[in-house]
Amino acid sequence: MTDPIRPTDDEARRLARDLLDAATFAALGVIDPETGAPFLSRVALACDAEGTPVSLISSLSAHATALRANPEASLLVGEPEDRGDPLTHPRLTVQARAVSIARDDPAFAALRDHYLALRPKSKLYIDFGDFYFIRFEVQRGFLNGGFGKAFRLTPGDLTR
Amino acid sequence: MTDPIRPTDDEARRLARDLLDAATFAALGVIDPETGAPFLSRVALACDAEGTPVSLISSLSAHATALRANPEASLLVGEPEDRGDPLTHPRLTVQARAVSIARDDPAFAALRDHYLALRPKSKLYIDFGDFYFIRFEVQRGFLNGGFGKAFRLTPGDLTR
Repeated sequence: MTDPIRPTDDEARRLARDLLDAATFAALGVIDPETGAPFLSRVALACDAEGTPVSLISSLSAHATALRANPEASLLVGEPEDRGDPLTHPRLTVQARAVSIARDDPAFAALRDHYLALRPKSKLYIDFGDFYFIRFEVQRGFLNGGFGKAFRLTPGDLTR
Repeated sequence: MTDPIRPTDDEARRLARDLLDAATFAALGVIDPETGAPFLSRVALACDAEGTPVSLISSLSAHATALRANPEASLLVGEPEDRGDPLTHPRLTVQARAVSIARDDPAFAALRDHYLALRPKSKLYIDFGDFYFIRFEVQRGFLNGGFGKAFRLTPGDLTR
C-alpha cells in the first residue's frame, strides 16, 4: 500500500487557508450523545479576527446539545462547482475542539460585531437569546486537493 | 425550551427522499480511530436499486480505515444554491451503519453496473483494485427544511 499523503508545502497551506476564509457554511460533525455515533449538520461559518473558524448556533439545535456533552468536532469546507466530478474539487477537513462563547461572555460583543460585518444576513437571528458562538480550536487539518493530492496539516499550517 | 421538531408528514418524507436521490456526493462523518473524535470527508454518493445510499471509496482513504474500525457513520446531503442564506436550503442528515461490498463480494458486479449507469464518470477509477462499495444501512434521519422546519425520520420514512 502506497501512502497517498504528500509532503505539506506552501501551496497546500495557501489552498487550505483560502478554503477556510471563503467558507460561509460548513458540514459539522459531532458525536451523538445518545448513540456515540457521528452526527452531521450544516452550520454557518466565518473566521474571527485571528482566522479561527467560528459559527453562530442555536442552543436548541442537536449539534449544540452534542457539543455540550463532547466538544470534539470536525468541519468540512470547500464546495464543488455545479459541473464536473465533485471529487476533483478541493476540500478541507478540520478537526477541532469546540469552545462556547455565550452571550454573557466578555468576548461576545466584539465577536458579534465582527461576525455581523462579515455575515450581514445574520442580523435576522444574531440577537435571539438562544444563539451563541462556537469557536473551533483547530487540532489538525486534512486537505484533499483532488484525486491523489492529499496533505496533513498542523494548526500552524492553518494560521492566517 | 420549546421543541423545534415538527411531526413528520408526507411532505417531509418526500423532501428527504428527493434530497437523497438527487445527491451525487455527500459529507461523510466517521469516528477517527486514533482519537475517537469525528472526522469528515467528501464522498461520491448514489442510491442502489432499493434506494439505499452507497458510495464508491478507496481502501487507501482515511474514511475507509475509520469505517473498518467502526462502521457508525453519518451523511449530509442537500447542497445550497449559489445565492441566499445557505441555512435556508433544505438538507438531510442520515445516521447509518456502513457495510462493505468488496470486489470479490457476489453483490459487487450488479452494484458496479448500476452505479456506473448512474455515475458514468466513475469509469475512470471504478475498476481500480483499491476501490469498493460502502452501503449505508440507514438507522435514522434528520431533515432540516430551513429555520424552524426540522423533522426526525425513521428508516421507514426514508424508504423509496
